[in-house]
Amino acid sequence: MRIVVLAGGIGGARFLRGLKRAVPDADITVIGNTGDDIHLFGLKVCPDLDTVMYTLGGGINEEQGWGRADETFHLKEELAAYGVGPEWFGLGDRDFATHIVRTQMIGAGYPLSAVTEALCDRWQPGVRLIPMTDDRVETHVAVVEEGERKAVHFQEYWVRLRASVPAEAIVPVGAEQAKPAPGVLEAITQADVILFPPSNPVVSVGTILAVPGIREAIADAGVPVVGLSPIVGDAPVRGMADKVLAAVGVESTAAAVAEHYGSGLLDGWLVDTVDAATVERVEAAGIRCRAVPLMMNDLDATAQMAREALELAEEVRGI
Amino acid sequence: MRIVVLAGGIGGARFLRGLKRAVPDADITVIGNTGDDIHLFGLKVCPDLDTVMYTLGGGINEEQGWGRADETFHLKEELAAYGVGPEWFGLGDRDFATHIVRTQMIGAGYPLSAVTEALCDRWQPGVRLIPMTDDRVETHVAVVEEGERKAVHFQEYWVRLRASVPAEAIVPVGAEQAKPAPGVLEAITQADVILFPPSNPVVSVGTILAVPGIREAIADAGVPVVGLSPIVGDAPVRGMADKVLAAVGVESTAAAVAEHYGSGLLDGWLVDTVDAATVERVEAAGIRCRAVPLMMNDLDATAQMAREALELAEEVRGI
Repeated sequence: MRIVVLAGGIGGARFLRGLKRAVPDADITVIGNTGDDIHLFGLKVCPDLDTVMYTLGGGINEEQGWGRADETFHLKEELAAYGVGPEWFGLGDRDFATHIVRTQMIGAGYPLSAVTEALCDRWQPGVRLIPMTDDRVETHVAVVEEGERKAVHFQEYWVRLRASVPAEAIVPVGAEQAKPAPGVLEAITQADVILFPPSNPVVSVGTILAVPGIREAIADAGVPVVGLSPIVGDAPVRGMADKVLAAVGVESTAAAVAEHYGSGLLDGWLVDTVDAATVERVEAAGIRCRAVPLMMNDLDATAQMAREALELAEEVRGI
Repeated sequence: MRIVVLAGGIGGARFLRGLKRAVPDADITVIGNTGDDIHLFGLKVCPDLDTVMYTLGGGINEEQGWGRADETFHLKEELAAYGVGPEWFGLGDRDFATHIVRTQMIGAGYPLSAVTEALCDRWQPGVRLIPMTDDRVETHVAVVEEGERKAVHFQEYWVRLRASVPAEAIVPVGAEQAKPAPGVLEAITQADVILFPPSNPVVSVGTILAVPGIREAIADAGVPVVGLSPIVGDAPVRGMADKVLAAVGVESTAAAVAEHYGSGLLDGWLVDTVDAATVERVEAAGIRCRAVPLMMNDLDATAQMAREALELAEEVRGI
């Protein structure tokens, strides 16, 4: 079974771990969000790709969900001692190595997809991880901070401001000119199932879908496309998805997110059992819907979520 | 009193600490060797400048004489795990910050002298540290390794090969086209005394003197120029100066090093008490010479060496 998953960071990575457990022999291609990418200290940092790679490769800091296990922050302390920032972005000593290798390879002319493949040679994540594009796409957020209207990098909005100021718009700068990375459209075309994990529907899955050709390829793939709601009981399971949903005019409910994706794209949608009452609304929008436990509390629970998603896909396929 | 010191790495840095102790109120300008500079992992590393800065600024690893105190090597371990080298160069996590800040500033267009000043703003070494040049000079060593004649970067010869293969030539590539950094010639012209610490006479002091204009300015300064022998009892006090002396056809003795500098440049020379018998030979070469203890075992001993050098300078001045 060939499965394509559109993944952001922590939510996507944890779901993928459950998916691998549920179907160990599946051929999984992960299309990773790169809209969160940022240049720090002259280095190219790809938070979402790294979170997937570290999580599936066994190097993740399990407690925080991002960054490396057994991490130290001496380099960052020293940069701060030199007065060099930003201090709000938590780059650890081990993590820096990934960004140094990536930056050197990109400087040598390799596209990000080739660099990601090289990094994965070490981590052996057990999936094929492809960035959504080799082109530069950077998600900017229009905010009003201290009375001033300005656009900030997504990481600045998310990490420095902790989404504490209202987002007026989310713009994946460069997406319109971006091309899907080599292998992305092929993987979609050859997939048996396409999954949207409980990643952020705006700044993770939404950014991937903003790369011209990807949304169309998924809609035209002719295979079941099933998603899992990142909203449980009208609140994000983790993160601050509600803030960015508001910016695109979508209410923070499981049903509204399904409608935001739309029946032209999505065939099936899993909501949490606490949102069982919303199943009817989703199905009325032309999307088959089931209510199952959606809390990724441990690997078993996450694997069960993956199984439910694949079962719903088969149900959709059988229609 | 305005003192100019031409310094390499460990030997120069330790001598400078003694000099500061000996004459705390002196205005000391250090002209640092940059021929050892190397690009590693896309970062510009200046080993000698950093050793001076860390030693005088209180951040040095006292035992090894280079690198940072309380250092960890997680980033380097991770680079090795990615298969990215070289592994033979010991860059620690804290040390990396210096190279990242430097590389970013150079990338932004600042010359190395301005970058060094900015880094020293943090370290407050208590001396003015100026690189010998803002231009790129790279000391290469012609060696025969496994039957093959080739040129290697000085750091590769010194650190990877540990000077274990014969050096046939030492070439400061780029020196002929280099210009002294801003402030270098001014400091020499305005100096009351010029000192050559017990740094390597070929690849440290020699490289500084290879930048057109510096040797001439020192010879023409009309002030005492006094050096301290890095060779004690026919062997280098530390390091492998004998290897590079052989490459330039100079025997590894205190007297031969004085003659190598020459009476056109050097007015006074300190040899160790074990080399007292050689004083006569050095003076026959037209260089005033004294035999005093030259082992930098502790700060007191080193400060005493500095006092002896300054006394010899006054003696020379009085002639």
